Amino acid sequence: MPETLISYDFSKPPEEQDIKPHNRWHPDIPMAVRVKPGAEFRLQCFDWTGGQIENNDSANDIRDVDLTKVHYLSGPVGIEGAEPGDLLVVDILDAGPLPDQLWGFNGIFARENGGGFLVDHFPEARKSIWDFHGIYTSSRHIPKVRFPGIIHPGLIGTLPSKELLKQWNDREKALVDTDPNRVPPLATLPYEETALMGSMKGEEAKAAAREAARTVPPREHGGNCDIKNLSRGSRVYFPVYVKEAGLSMGDLHFSQGDGEITFCGAIEMAGFIELRVNLIKGGMKKYNISSPIFQPSKIDPQFKDYLIFEGISVDEDGKQHYLDAHIAYRRACLAAIDYLKNFGYSGEQAYAILGTAPVEGHISGIVDIPNVCATLWLPTEVFEFDIHPTDAGPAIEIPSGIDTSRTS
Amino acid sequence: MPETLISYDFSKPPEEQDIKPHNRWHPDIPMAVRVKPGAEFRLQCFDWTGGQIENNDSANDIRDVDLTKVHYLSGPVGIEGAEPGDLLVVDILDAGPLPDQLWGFNGIFARENGGGFLVDHFPEARKSIWDFHGIYTSSRHIPKVRFPGIIHPGLIGTLPSKELLKQWNDREKALVDTDPNRVPPLATLPYEETALMGSMKGEEAKAAAREAARTVPPREHGGNCDIKNLSRGSRVYFPVYVKEAGLSMGDLHFSQGDGEITFCGAIEMAGFIELRVNLIKGGMKKYNISSPIFQPSKIDPQFKDYLIFEGISVDEDGKQHYLDAHIAYRRACLAAIDYLKNFGYSGEQAYAILGTAPVEGHISGIVDIPNVCATLWLPTEVFEFDIHPTDAGPAIEIPSGIDTSRTS
Amino acid sequence: MPETLISYDFSKPPEEQDIKPHNRWHPDIPMAVRVKPGAEFRLQCFDWTGGQIENNDSANDIRDVDLTKVHYLSGPVGIEGAEPGDLLVVDILDAGPLPDQLWGFNGIFARENGGGFLVDHFPEARKSIWDFHGIYTSSRHIPKVRFPGIIHPGLIGTLPSKELLKQWNDREKALVDTDPNRVPPLATLPYEETALMGSMKGEEAKAAAREAARTVPPREHGGNCDIKNLSRGSRVYFPVYVKEAGLSMGDLHFSQGDGEITFCGAIEMAGFIELRVNLIKGGMKKYNISSPIFQPSKIDPQFKDYLIFEGISVDEDGKQHYLDAHIAYRRACLAAIDYLKNFGYSGEQAYAILGTAPVEGHISGIVDIPNVCATLWLPTEVFEFDIHPTDAGPAIEIPSGIDTSRTS
Amino acid sequence: MPETLISYDFSKPPEEQDIKPHNRWHPDIPMAVRVKPGAEFRLQCFDWTGGQIENNDSANDIRDVDLTKVHYLSGPVGIEGAEPGDLLVVDILDAGPLPDQLWGFNGIFARENGGGFLVDHFPEARKSIWDFHGIYTSSRHIPKVRFPGIIHPGLIGTLPSKELLKQWNDREKALVDTDPNRVPPLATLPYEETALMGSMKGEEAKAAAREAARTVPPREHGGNCDIKNLSRGSRVYFPVYVKEAGLSMGDLHFSQGDGEITFCGAIEMAGFIELRVNLIKGGMKKYNISSPIFQPSKIDPQFKDYLIFEGISVDEDGKQHYLDAHIAYRRACLAAIDYLKNFGYSGEQAYAILGTAPVEGHISGIVDIPNVCATLWLPTEVFEFDIHPTDAGPAIEIPSGIDTSRTS
Repeated sequence: MPETLISYDFSKPPEEQDIKPHNRWHPDIPMAVRVKPGAEFRLQCFDWTGGQIENNDSANDIRDVDLTKVHYLSGPVGIEGAEPGDLLVVDILDAGPLPDQLWGFNGIFARENGGGFLVDHFPEARKSIWDFHGIYTSSRHIPKVRFPGIIHPGLIGTLPSKELLKQWNDREKALVDTDPNRVPPLATLPYEETALMGSMKGEEAKAAAREAARTVPPREHGGNCDIKNLSRGSRVYFPVYVKEAGLSMGDLHFSQGDGEITFCGAIEMAGFIELRVNLIKGGMKKYNISSPIFQPSKIDPQFKDYLIFEGISVDEDGKQHYLDAHIAYRRACLAAIDYLKNFGYSGEQAYAILGTAPVEGHISGIVDIPNVCATLWLPTEVFEFDIHPTDAGPAIEIPSGIDTSRTS
Repeated sequence: MPETLISYDFSKPPEEQDIKPHNRWHPDIPMAVRVKPGAEFRLQCFDWTGGQIENNDSANDIRDVDLTKVHYLSGPVGIEGAEPGDLLVVDILDAGPLPDQLWGFNGIFARENGGGFLVDHFPEARKSIWDFHGIYTSSRHIPKVRFPGIIHPGLIGTLPSKELLKQWNDREKALVDTDPNRVPPLATLPYEETALMGSMKGEEAKAAAREAARTVPPREHGGNCDIKNLSRGSRVYFPVYVKEAGLSMGDLHFSQGDGEITFCGAIEMAGFIELRVNLIKGGMKKYNISSPIFQPSKIDPQFKDYLIFEGISVDEDGKQHYLDAHIAYRRACLAAIDYLKNFGYSGEQAYAILGTAPVEGHISGIVDIPNVCATLWLPTEVFEFDIHPTDAGPAIEIPSGIDTSRTS
Repeated sequence: MPETLISYDFSKPPEEQDIKPHNRWHPDIPMAVRVKPGAEFRLQCFDWTGGQIENNDSANDIRDVDLTKVHYLSGPVGIEGAEPGDLLVVDILDAGPLPDQLWGFNGIFARENGGGFLVDHFPEARKSIWDFHGIYTSSRHIPKVRFPGIIHPGLIGTLPSKELLKQWNDREKALVDTDPNRVPPLATLPYEETALMGSMKGEEAKAAAREAARTVPPREHGGNCDIKNLSRGSRVYFPVYVKEAGLSMGDLHFSQGDGEITFCGAIEMAGFIELRVNLIKGGMKKYNISSPIFQPSKIDPQFKDYLIFEGISVDEDGKQHYLDAHIAYRRACLAAIDYLKNFGYSGEQAYAILGTAPVEGHISGIVDIPNVCATLWLPTEVFEFDIHPTDAGPAIEIPSGIDTSRTS
Repeated sequence: MPETLISYDFSKPPEEQDIKPHNRWHPDIPMAVRVKPGAEFRLQCFDWTGGQIENNDSANDIRDVDLTKVHYLSGPVGIEGAEPGDLLVVDILDAGPLPDQLWGFNGIFARENGGGFLVDHFPEARKSIWDFHGIYTSSRHIPKVRFPGIIHPGLIGTLPSKELLKQWNDREKALVDTDPNRVPPLATLPYEETALMGSMKGEEAKAAAREAARTVPPREHGGNCDIKNLSRGSRVYFPVYVKEAGLSMGDLHFSQGDGEITFCGAIEMAGFIELRVNLIKGGMKKYNISSPIFQPSKIDPQFKDYLIFEGISVDEDGKQHYLDAHIAYRRACLAAIDYLKNFGYSGEQAYAILGTAPVEGHISGIVDIPNVCATLWLPTEVFEFDIHPTDAGPAIEIPSGIDTSRTS
């Protein structure tokens, strides 16, 4: 097995590890480990909450997640010889759960905590636990659904340069300033209190934390892209912005649907990732690249039959919006949820299915004013019964007593 | 061959056909033909401009398209026994070009005419002609690209009820009223002058035209969805809103990328479509459906290698927007165009490739404030050279003298 | 549409056509038409029996097929500049049925006429008629099966050189000589009587016919390979053995399973084929090639769920054979037929399904003495009911009164 | 992690383990462990040689493998409640190498030791070592080949009944008796000396060993099928022949091509397998099943571009055989090897590629006397250079000094 360069004692919180993870982005975070181009290695990763969620039947822990204390990232991994302007070629050779923790969780976030994509329809915290059976997963909270995982890091990226960091901070602050008292805020600005800056210490760490970018959004370095197809077997080309690149990652998912719509939207887990890194010197300029590009894996699950739901830019109140892909995708998701409820699923169960199963979300038409046409592709083969429309109409397949967990 | 229920003399304009097409949506448009459930039949269809575009090397005709005189639809086809509340099951058994017109066109619309998805970057009218070679297509204006078609109707839908039509008109007018003098307008409202109402005549036709919905956007009945996957071999379930359903279609595409981003964005063509229709009585209520759903075809082209580009909700000026999927997808498209320019393609050529080849546009992450992460999937196998990043960097593959056609 | 270089009056037999097809292989058959490298063109093709089979409910015509009067091939097409040693690159751009003859036939050949792969189990002539519904096919004789076609020429190849023809004749005669009175014979030797030699006439034609190879087996030039994946969209590289190559083809299939096991085993039809031809000069030597190689099509139907049956080299009487792949594949086919009979299909119906649907036949293990392990892959999605094993056991899905047609 | 019911000390030979494996099939071998229907569990497995092969650069160990001392199987696993006539439903939930032994081997067997499928062309022992890089593998002995694994047990099956065992012994002896002194023999008959009968001891074990079936061939219970698609994620339905079924397995492969043609033909490894078992009571009769059937995995690697080579029933000396699929597939393999040599691979390297990479071997046509048409599907994407034919001809890609290991 390739060497595990970073491993954790998962019985302790992230702050107490020997090699401390980081939960902010800053160019000065020291490399935690160093490798040469061509190296293959493993890292362990916390789940995105750093261990706040339990395998039980209460959503209290989902309700109580402190969003300033998440995304404890493994790294930065320094790649010798990497310089700004290079492309860092990352092969995700493997990824998986911890052998003694073969489960993950999906959470619907409450409105008070930011909510998910469909917060107006599902405002309460909910949780489902997903067990792993080899390559497959299923949940005791959502019967008759079973599918192979598409294991990937929700969050992976390189360290930003000072200049890039400043751009991020400037533009996000400008957005927040348009409605500074909004709850939830329009963006998450630097916040010193709960920052963990890897091996930085004392005042230096505090100073950096005051300007370090939060990990919530994806940006030009990758970051929290939550792209389900950055899966094991894929190859990613990252821009390099600082000397030695500084590759960090975490927020592992056993599976996720396009959009990660429940917010804590994938099947979240702790685990390991195995990588090989290489460099294309000067690749950013050679290829005119300023954001990651990637190639998908040859072992992503193959589904060939889908039911596909359409959504347009008209909101739930019937109001017409102008080319709004966000609303269109929301309507497509809601149509799929309405459909699944025919079989006895609760709305929350259906919502969780869209967040966890490898559904596809396409922007199908985006020029036909005023409506975007978004489509939600639901693989029919993840269900253990036939969901196609028939003359006979749907039968209730899901017992009424089983549901996602609530708060207490 | 199943009977061709509607055929045209393509040497004449739509207005002069024996069975007149319609270019508006209205519940009172009489059925052009009638079939029983289970019937298989063919229809011919105009290209979306009704024959305004020539196979030549000038974009003048693209520049001059009158957008009030487009989408001449074949139908309505009445299905005996269909009643409001049913689901109309439509199998798209086949579709293809006219045997004596084996070419199609892609147009980048000029800003003056509404523009396309990337109008700020490509404000001028451009045209490329695509020749059909059996299942494949290629263009003399865009070298070294060749791919199999994914033939589909850009526009297919059922007649709206009076109530649904009123909803459409009300909500779209409300949107236009927020900025009534905008050029281009926020939506296209009913417009009597150029309406063709099938076999309706005289005052009745004019009265209906004054309230008939324009065909530009997709809506709850399907319509101009421009979903590339409504391809031959697929099955679509349409809501039925009026007696006999009234299924109409047109705007055939030989191929299209997700989003149809150049506006005249697919490979547009005249041709035929072959259908089978069936009913699920009361299916809208049985399945809680108020928009079409569909299953994809088993013969859609199979690509397995993609280069995937990421885009976030930060616009080209660096301004941060809040969860704007529209901007994120635009940035992903622009990243792909920048990439393709490395090989010698002009921006317009690259833009046309994204509009015509079966690229996939995914909403990958939509909850990580403030950035949506959209991804543009470019199938590498449509190129006759290797587009993957390498140490050596890209080579110029496209001769500089060849480009999409301009206006004169 | 590309020019149709060879078309037929299908109301007349092959012998009475203006451009006569040929039903033997000989280097001296004159080119019927000539094209330049890069040319695209269409040809019409007879069904493999030259029109002997009717769309009715009797297998008499299947029983009575004269096997010396089949495979009326369209061609030879001469490619200017082609010389022995070149590779002829053939893109199968399209293929399809005749517009006024949208049906095909599958025949189980009677023992007296050579029989099929399972002749000891199904010794009588049977016929099923398959109707084409756009890209799909189904049969009134075999309910609840429906699948998209994988249209291809069963027979396509280049003219042999004199030397190659001699090799064929010598080796096949040597085989026949080992058991010269066998019925059916071990191979089909040249037979002057029923030979049609294209445009050759009189004594010259007769002389050539006496040494011309029969079209039954595939050989080093391609020929009657019956490879279902030489489908529209595929690219084939043929060895060139004579000046101008001489490409001929016929025996079109709407679909076929691996092995073409019922002998008249595909869905046989008349139709058209559209090709583009190019040359790789000296390609046979450059690439050390002495048989065709090819690339599959990107639009072959995609099935992802199969039931797979295993067969080993033990015959139906329990006798052990040594690494006999023929017996192993037969046993796998028989296991699949036994399985399908659970649902009410007759053995002949099941046999016809394996012959027509796109089943895959794999040589899975071929070194574990004394048993080959062959596998028969049955795509479950071609059935309109669920064929997976369940606790409940199978239900009868097929009414007992419907079957393949018999002789009268 | 599900409980590992059988684990080994891999520093010791199979005979010295606490839970002894077995290398023969006999109904009286006691269950090693017992589980209930629905159980999920793991087993460790020896590589097929029981640890005889080293990770080095000499083929001596391949030359010296004692074929009577192989296939040390993990099991039998008793399934409570299983009775003869049931179907045992086995979900292969996962499989993989041992964490501290991330490599496998491919061996070409010497003629003296039985040889492989192409022994007349490659009569000497050769070895290649394959390293595992997450889901990918590559070999220092065969440059520029890299592909994802399709991990599967080469050997998995249920215990035979006494009656079935007698059938096996009778029919295999009858075959051997047709040529009793043949080297190698036509089949491998029971052989007491090296038998390991699980937990059976003393005279009882010896008596059973004298009639216990060897593990070389696949049979009606599964066994050494060497089907590459029995991969992780697949579901297999096994006939049950004895009380509690007795499921045993071993001979793990990281990857294999159809046919396993080099004999030690896959990438052989030790490792683990994770299973879930269930029963369909009376399923053999319900479904008329007397051999395993299975469904493939949704995560098998997806290749979409192949070069496909054809072979017919004419042997290398030009002799015509009658419908011999064995020869046809051999000729297809040889054509592929000849082709790969164009790029600098030695014949042995090319042979090893066909044995290890996920090539497909199809019986394409099997009724066109006297030639079977077999096809060998070579996925072009496993190569790190372009192997398609071009005008320019092939370039040497493989340095001449690197090859599979020889004996010393």
